Amino acid sequence: MYAEDAAAVATPEQPTTAAVAEPTAEATPAPQEKSTWEKILANMPKISGYLQTGWNWAQDSYDNSHATSSFQAKRLRLIMDGKVGEKVDFRLQIEAFNGIAGSTNGNGQKNLQVMDAFATWKVMPEFKIRAGQFYTPLGYENYDISPKTLETVDFSNIVYRMACRNPYEYNFVDYGRDLGVMLMGDLFDSGKGFRYLHYDLALTNGSIPCKDDDNSSKDFYVSATVRPVKFFNIKATYNYGKYKDNSKIADGSKYNPMHRFVVGAWYNDPQGIDLRAEYGLLKSKVDGQKRLDEQGAYVLAGYHAGKWLPMVRWDMYRDKMQNTVNPNGETIQKCNANYNYNRILVGVNYQLFKNVTIQFNYHHFFFNDKQYTSNGEEYSGRNQIQLMGRFCF
Amino acid sequence: MYAEDAAAVATPEQPTTAAVAEPTAEATPAPQEKSTWEKILANMPKISGYLQTGWNWAQDSYDNSHATSSFQAKRLRLIMDGKVGEKVDFRLQIEAFNGIAGSTNGNGQKNLQVMDAFATWKVMPEFKIRAGQFYTPLGYENYDISPKTLETVDFSNIVYRMACRNPYEYNFVDYGRDLGVMLMGDLFDSGKGFRYLHYDLALTNGSIPCKDDDNSSKDFYVSATVRPVKFFNIKATYNYGKYKDNSKIADGSKYNPMHRFVVGAWYNDPQGIDLRAEYGLLKSKVDGQKRLDEQGAYVLAGYHAGKWLPMVRWDMYRDKMQNTVNPNGETIQKCNANYNYNRILVGVNYQLFKNVTIQFNYHHFFFNDKQYTSNGEEYSGRNQIQLMGRFCF
Amino acid sequence: MYAEDAAAVATPEQPTTAAVAEPTAEATPAPQEKSTWEKILANMPKISGYLQTGWNWAQDSYDNSHATSSFQAKRLRLIMDGKVGEKVDFRLQIEAFNGIAGSTNGNGQKNLQVMDAFATWKVMPEFKIRAGQFYTPLGYENYDISPKTLETVDFSNIVYRMACRNPYEYNFVDYGRDLGVMLMGDLFDSGKGFRYLHYDLALTNGSIPCKDDDNSSKDFYVSATVRPVKFFNIKATYNYGKYKDNSKIADGSKYNPMHRFVVGAWYNDPQGIDLRAEYGLLKSKVDGQKRLDEQGAYVLAGYHAGKWLPMVRWDMYRDKMQNTVNPNGETIQKCNANYNYNRILVGVNYQLFKNVTIQFNYHHFFFNDKQYTSNGEEYSGRNQIQLMGRFCF
Repeated sequence: MYAEDAAAVATPEQPTTAAVAEPTAEATPAPQEKSTWEKILANMPKISGYLQTGWNWAQDSYDNSHATSSFQAKRLRLIMDGKVGEKVDFRLQIEAFNGIAGSTNGNGQKNLQVMDAFATWKVMPEFKIRAGQFYTPLGYENYDISPKTLETVDFSNIVYRMACRNPYEYNFVDYGRDLGVMLMGDLFDSGKGFRYLHYDLALTNGSIPCKDDDNSSKDFYVSATVRPVKFFNIKATYNYGKYKDNSKIADGSKYNPMHRFVVGAWYNDPQGIDLRAEYGLLKSKVDGQKRLDEQGAYVLAGYHAGKWLPMVRWDMYRDKMQNTVNPNGETIQKCNANYNYNRILVGVNYQLFKNVTIQFNYHHFFFNDKQYTSNGEEYSGRNQIQLMGRFCF
Repeated sequence: MYAEDAAAVATPEQPTTAAVAEPTAEATPAPQEKSTWEKILANMPKISGYLQTGWNWAQDSYDNSHATSSFQAKRLRLIMDGKVGEKVDFRLQIEAFNGIAGSTNGNGQKNLQVMDAFATWKVMPEFKIRAGQFYTPLGYENYDISPKTLETVDFSNIVYRMACRNPYEYNFVDYGRDLGVMLMGDLFDSGKGFRYLHYDLALTNGSIPCKDDDNSSKDFYVSATVRPVKFFNIKATYNYGKYKDNSKIADGSKYNPMHRFVVGAWYNDPQGIDLRAEYGLLKSKVDGQKRLDEQGAYVLAGYHAGKWLPMVRWDMYRDKMQNTVNPNGETIQKCNANYNYNRILVGVNYQLFKNVTIQFNYHHFFFNDKQYTSNGEEYSGRNQIQLMGRFCF
Repeated sequence: MYAEDAAAVATPEQPTTAAVAEPTAEATPAPQEKSTWEKILANMPKISGYLQTGWNWAQDSYDNSHATSSFQAKRLRLIMDGKVGEKVDFRLQIEAFNGIAGSTNGNGQKNLQVMDAFATWKVMPEFKIRAGQFYTPLGYENYDISPKTLETVDFSNIVYRMACRNPYEYNFVDYGRDLGVMLMGDLFDSGKGFRYLHYDLALTNGSIPCKDDDNSSKDFYVSATVRPVKFFNIKATYNYGKYKDNSKIADGSKYNPMHRFVVGAWYNDPQGIDLRAEYGLLKSKVDGQKRLDEQGAYVLAGYHAGKWLPMVRWDMYRDKMQNTVNPNGETIQKCNANYNYNRILVGVNYQLFKNVTIQFNYHHFFFNDKQYTSNGEEYSGRNQIQLMGRFCF
């Protein structure tokens, strides 16, 4: 329905964050005389979305079954772009197959969850204000890319373990969303269809979305994307916040500090090479003692060959904390070792129709430490296959 | 999208209940010849809604933190007005940030909840029939006003403690909705753009919405609004029902009686003074013994000065039951004393754009009895600040 | 909004399954020149749905109250038909008053649940591919009919006890949906507005929808509908799958086999007689021992007399397993005896307006074995009355 949508299906969205946030702005044609009906239509909320569904196979699952295979309703995103006014847009995004731990229903079924609900006041291209619940600018995959434009089926662990998860207060994916206000803009027009600089400054709760914050401290984000030429840009984001220590070494405080930093570079020719790398850090110290120390990285290389997009990705994640033993001989869990792996992904996308993409991903996991199934079998690797269709409407 | 919406943002809706229920009727223009496409468009469900999001600060919260501050997703209302036929409309309203106690997900997050789902057969202006789940006519704030048209961010306690809550069966806000049938109409056309009398007669489950009733007794509502002149009206509503005694002195019966009565008056000049007052009673006796005895009131005064609406409101609520001590020396909880307060609100709305309103509310609570934080600190007052944006789409 | 919808309200949908799945295909007119706005409109997702609300009265309920009566929000279906491409459609269906056991919220309230979320690639009329979460082809009522087109308010027990429920893994209604892929098509054009053969071949998880499967075995469905003349057809469906034994005699295995078979015949003249019968079997043996043995049937007879549709239905269900007593004298529950009944339904539908149908159903249950209320009263029969309005938008 939008210009963005048509282009975005097979070719990953170009990293102009403006395109993510304000898809309607450029898409609506402006005929010289509008009938009453055309005016009504122009002001109606625009509904769009996509279904990602298919087959997942995994070997050596954690629950001791040798392999699992399932048809999956991976994602069903419903998006509503409402027109609030001449310069104000509203965006609602709902995940209809939300299966995040703790939020499924009593039968363990996935259900609906509000992801985005924000209004954006576009004062001018150089300055916009966003209020509500929105995706934070922490890295390309969390801000500039959605599963609709992502090359692979799943994100790297920079998203799942860093951007989408608050390691202090909880330990589950929160879709990388938060409640607050964000200032942003695009500066220095190149005259060649892009601007040299994009910036984001956000103040957010620093807690779980769809919930009031229970500490008074707010999170702060600063992010800049520099685009020297049309197909290439680099991005860096820093985040600081204070949290309750729930997940690891509980000390009751609601005000433990945490730092997150993600830096990356992206070259993307829609008719050629797609090359992206990101590196992320997550750290916390309380009274000079390390509480959190995590690190993630990935490199993705693909090539847009007509309707095909073959790709390879390497990604890693490392929780560098060590479990300790207390004077009573009990193990103090400080580390999520089962996420400590390197992983190779080989994949290919095929654009069957304008709005239909078939995605094939093969993963091999190399665990840093040996893993054990519940009946004690040891394993150091793991394979996964995903075959998905992505249908945009 | 509707004529109503445009007017409603900064100027509170005039208390013609018809305007609340049937917004589409007047709003759709009627061109002489319709193309196929215009006919399709005219019969499509109309989607609208509003996001209310901002900042909340409160001092002396009950959980012993001295002050709390949080960005909030206060309300996200999604409204669908479907055309069932020439004289039959359908209304669906969903709260996408429903945080009512007991209905949040396993992670404590707000989620989606159906509020309204009803069909209205408009036989004639004097007689309409509504069936389904709808808002009951108990007072202006529950029936004639929505958060989209309310002057303040939150309702008074006549809504939260009386209309929106069944003190027998449960003790949480139910949005003032119930399942049943309602007859209503507007009589005696003044010839000056309004009718002198509006009436509502409803028969409802008298239990929680979105759930089957577990007693056979039904609730009854009768309500009348008399409007002698365009800008002024008075309204009175009486409700009777029978309930299970869960919340206070459980006696196992599903058939304890309860009476509710709300009366009010409203003067509202869209270019001038807005003055509204309501008084409510809630009472129950079983075997000559008082079981429930509550009282609430408020006076709101504002002035529509162009894009500004400054206002002041006083409201009070009093649960007049007394906790008692039984022969074993145990306290029998009969009263919700922490709601027993007077409160002053000073606020101002500014209409930034046609569909964007900025709302600032400052509250001071005067508790009737001393309150205590969980570590024993005593307090008799409390302050709250709300700064919200209301974005209609 | 669709041609199908207008016809479907009072006259049950003719059993061409193609009409269920692809309502938009025929409905959109194709003018010779489209304006930009017409193109936008043509590609917008189409939203429709229906509310079914009214009154339910039941005598001799299981919970020992002599009779219950309640206004009910029976069903609110929201349907979105999105256009993915020239030959690819997307269908989303949400039940907004889902009250399935285990999925209501903490206050026992019904809430939103995704039922359907699938894409259909219509390669040609003879061959279509569907992927996602969809209704399985097990019988007319689960596949060819929805509550919008069903003559009665509720389905027969072939749907609720066989198609909509997996007696091994769980024991609640799952809407007869599953995740997987389905091939289907209509063969042998009669040249008189119908095709002689419809077929469905499906491979699905064989577990609960909206959830990943936890065994590796997949379910298989094969179904054929033969239509020798326009108003008459016969249908047979066979399903095989493997399941975890949760509900009866748990043995820990995830791979117990189950067979389901439903056969039926339907004569339906939209201006005359509507006569339909189905018979279903559900069986399982493990190591030569019967684990499941159930049987269901119904005969429905109605007559389309203008706006009226009077009808009578007999249906039965029989769980033929017997509870046993183990060496310790404990009863081993192998049978759901409270569903073992014959039932007579007498009903009438009246089409008040094009999109409004009033439905009256009277049921009498004849239990095979005596039933007992919780305080020991015995009963062998039960009455139920349903008075509902069905409003389509």
